[in-house]
Amino acid sequence: MTPPSEETPPEETEAWETLDEALQAQDTVLTKSILDGLEAEDQARAVSLLSQENREALLVTLPSKDFAQLLQELPEAQAVELLETLPSEQTAAAVECLPAETSSRLLRELEDQDSAQILHEIQDGESLSELKARLEYPEGCAGSLMRGSPVSFPQETTVQELLNDLYNHADDYSDRDIQYLYVVDEEKRLVGVLQLRQLFWAPRSKTIGELMIPDPLSVSDQMDFHDLAEIFTKRAFLGLPVVDDAGRLVGVVPRDTVQRETSDEQTEQYLQSQGIVDGEELRSMPLFDRCRKRLAWLAPNIVLNLAAASVIAANEATLQEVIALAVFLPIVSDMSGCSGNQAVAVSIRELTLGILKPKDFVRVLSKEGLVGIINGSLLGILLGVVAAIWKGNLVLGAVVASALALNTVLSVLLGGLVPLFLKSRKVDPALASGPILTTCTDMCGFFLVLSLASAVLDKLT
Amino acid sequence: MTPPSEETPPEETEAWETLDEALQAQDTVLTKSILDGLEAEDQARAVSLLSQENREALLVTLPSKDFAQLLQELPEAQAVELLETLPSEQTAAAVECLPAETSSRLLRELEDQDSAQILHEIQDGESLSELKARLEYPEGCAGSLMRGSPVSFPQETTVQELLNDLYNHADDYSDRDIQYLYVVDEEKRLVGVLQLRQLFWAPRSKTIGELMIPDPLSVSDQMDFHDLAEIFTKRAFLGLPVVDDAGRLVGVVPRDTVQRETSDEQTEQYLQSQGIVDGEELRSMPLFDRCRKRLAWLAPNIVLNLAAASVIAANEATLQEVIALAVFLPIVSDMSGCSGNQAVAVSIRELTLGILKPKDFVRVLSKEGLVGIINGSLLGILLGVVAAIWKGNLVLGAVVASALALNTVLSVLLGGLVPLFLKSRKVDPALASGPILTTCTDMCGFFLVLSLASAVLDKLT
Repeated sequence: MTPPSEETPPEETEAWETLDEALQAQDTVLTKSILDGLEAEDQARAVSLLSQENREALLVTLPSKDFAQLLQELPEAQAVELLETLPSEQTAAAVECLPAETSSRLLRELEDQDSAQILHEIQDGESLSELKARLEYPEGCAGSLMRGSPVSFPQETTVQELLNDLYNHADDYSDRDIQYLYVVDEEKRLVGVLQLRQLFWAPRSKTIGELMIPDPLSVSDQMDFHDLAEIFTKRAFLGLPVVDDAGRLVGVVPRDTVQRETSDEQTEQYLQSQGIVDGEELRSMPLFDRCRKRLAWLAPNIVLNLAAASVIAANEATLQEVIALAVFLPIVSDMSGCSGNQAVAVSIRELTLGILKPKDFVRVLSKEGLVGIINGSLLGILLGVVAAIWKGNLVLGAVVASALALNTVLSVLLGGLVPLFLKSRKVDPALASGPILTTCTDMCGFFLVLSLASAVLDKLT
Repeated sequence: MTPPSEETPPEETEAWETLDEALQAQDTVLTKSILDGLEAEDQARAVSLLSQENREALLVTLPSKDFAQLLQELPEAQAVELLETLPSEQTAAAVECLPAETSSRLLRELEDQDSAQILHEIQDGESLSELKARLEYPEGCAGSLMRGSPVSFPQETTVQELLNDLYNHADDYSDRDIQYLYVVDEEKRLVGVLQLRQLFWAPRSKTIGELMIPDPLSVSDQMDFHDLAEIFTKRAFLGLPVVDDAGRLVGVVPRDTVQRETSDEQTEQYLQSQGIVDGEELRSMPLFDRCRKRLAWLAPNIVLNLAAASVIAANEATLQEVIALAVFLPIVSDMSGCSGNQAVAVSIRELTLGILKPKDFVRVLSKEGLVGIINGSLLGILLGVVAAIWKGNLVLGAVVASALALNTVLSVLLGGLVPLFLKSRKVDPALASGPILTTCTDMCGFFLVLSLASAVLDKLT
């Protein structure tokens, strides 16, 4: 009944400091006991604050099985970081101790050469071939997510035989957290499923073939994770059996795994929308990697920015005549960019929920168009009034108001539609919508302000 | 073994159209069978595309129990939308059919007057008092998330008695998807826990008091959801028992529920970062609500934008002298804004993982400072070269380069630190970091370009 520890007050020694000392002393027992005593978050924090030297000490001090355990408990990005920065001769031993669904997931996130090195160091032939088989599945499909070797029995097994088997192998089963028993024919093809607890009220002499739910829902090992997520949303299953092309039972996808994937996808969506696009970044990662990955998104962006600003360059004469416009150029482009981003977020969210399909552009056009007209007009009037009073020029107010209103309509339409277009082209909308939208709204915003102004130039000067 | 249906080709009749017809005819049986035949996503899409009139027909046509079922299966935002837009006299009956943890969660998301109306219409006194008790818990704590009435037995129960009870109430239990049996003393205080499947290998004459895991991990009904999530990350439990102040067992928080909350929080983080801040928006929601909620974020933003642009206004004279600078003002402010946003995302992510604490500002300062210096210099040089060549003026290139470099350093520092500051002030970093950062980087960007330029004005004209 112990509640988890309250947050440590800043004065106290933090866990990573004690861990630091244990590692300096290469004290295996103490290191293990410190890690075991930490909640997941504190463990992650402690590892993140260790020096590179002490991380290597961690790998040497902990037995491979315990290091593998740690890799499983840490946030994925951190586990990947450890595998990338620690010597592969030693990490390989820990990777071998991981279940194939976990090790393959981590290896997929590594740079190609890092993952090849670890594979090269793996000693056990069976682990290696299982891991390679996993890596051949496309990322995120049922075959890559499933747990292998599900508990299955032939259909002629009686309840009594099954109960005896459970009794005799209690330790095996209780470790594995099984919920369902799968029933297979002589070709190992899935023919039925049985809830473990059904056995409580089953007559002992019946065969499981008689008791099972026949022809149960199963999924192909090639099924995409989004389709899996859909099934788990609709049904309360704790796991789904996975079959190969021949209908043979090859694994079970647990609900947990699919939920973790969903959650990872949402995190990625958020990070990508903020310009962290080439894998998750933690500040403990090497400096140059962090710079390089951030630049990979910033550098193309500078080109888009230049394209947008070239509209200003093309209208410098107008601007020079009415220098007051310079104040409103960034406001108009930023504000309509914000409106457009809202529309992007709603489209991406509706696409994720499956409510919106890429073909629905007419619906988005009408729904966003109305919001654009209403919000654009209101914001336009607001900014126009400010401009007119500030600069004491009604016509200037009218120019700024119309530019913001028009550009807002354009921006929300574009913001609503770009994700649909990207989705239909199989490009991740969270990745590309933002930069495309910003560039277009900047260009149009600058163009609208400056060309409307040049149309009424005599009233402005 | 049926795989879920492939995506419907655009020509085929979509589910919502058939549903439309069934509703026009108020055909209960057909409506139910259409909904039952749909995967969760298609159900959500169908409901989202119904007219308001047909949504009301849906409420009238479906029995309350089935409408409640639908509310449970739809995405939360959509269920909330239905409750807000349909007449409360009829929705109340469906809300009554929901488990209290679900109905209270939905009611919390409604506008106050809508939720009050539904509460007012609920007939059954017991449901009403249970629901009100749930609503009194702070949002997101164990008491608001738990399932009520857990399966518990006194410790003197023998295994045989328990097995008989399971056998005799098989239907009750199999519906409830229980994983653990809880053991309580005569005061209903939690004293132990038993995995259901432990019974497979337990001697029949022992009491569960002898077999149970004594003094099991339990959580207070006041425990915050983040602490719950931490426990579930660390431990493989499928559920955690919840106790009140007196140690009495009052419910069970299922792992599922906590994962759903985590996932909801991530979605919210993403939406807020894009300016959808006042609850999730779906395009099927009423137009004026959508406009109002989006404006609530846009309107304050216009003020921040004005503040930033006032820096340009204060330096109009310099700008008029070197009109070429106008091209680079938005580039410098946008680009450094982008760099800063990356730092915001990394800080928010590290805060979520628990790796970063609000007190770690020195660490963030040094880690972001280095990235800022490297990326700022590189981007500065890149833009400076472009500027120098484009405008044929080396000094202009130097001004633009230094402004972008300096502003990038500033922006990543600010981006890294603002979330820490907000978190320590208990403000949601995802909500406020973006606007604060953008305003500051715009101001500083404009200021740097224009004041550096005015320092070397004679070389620029």
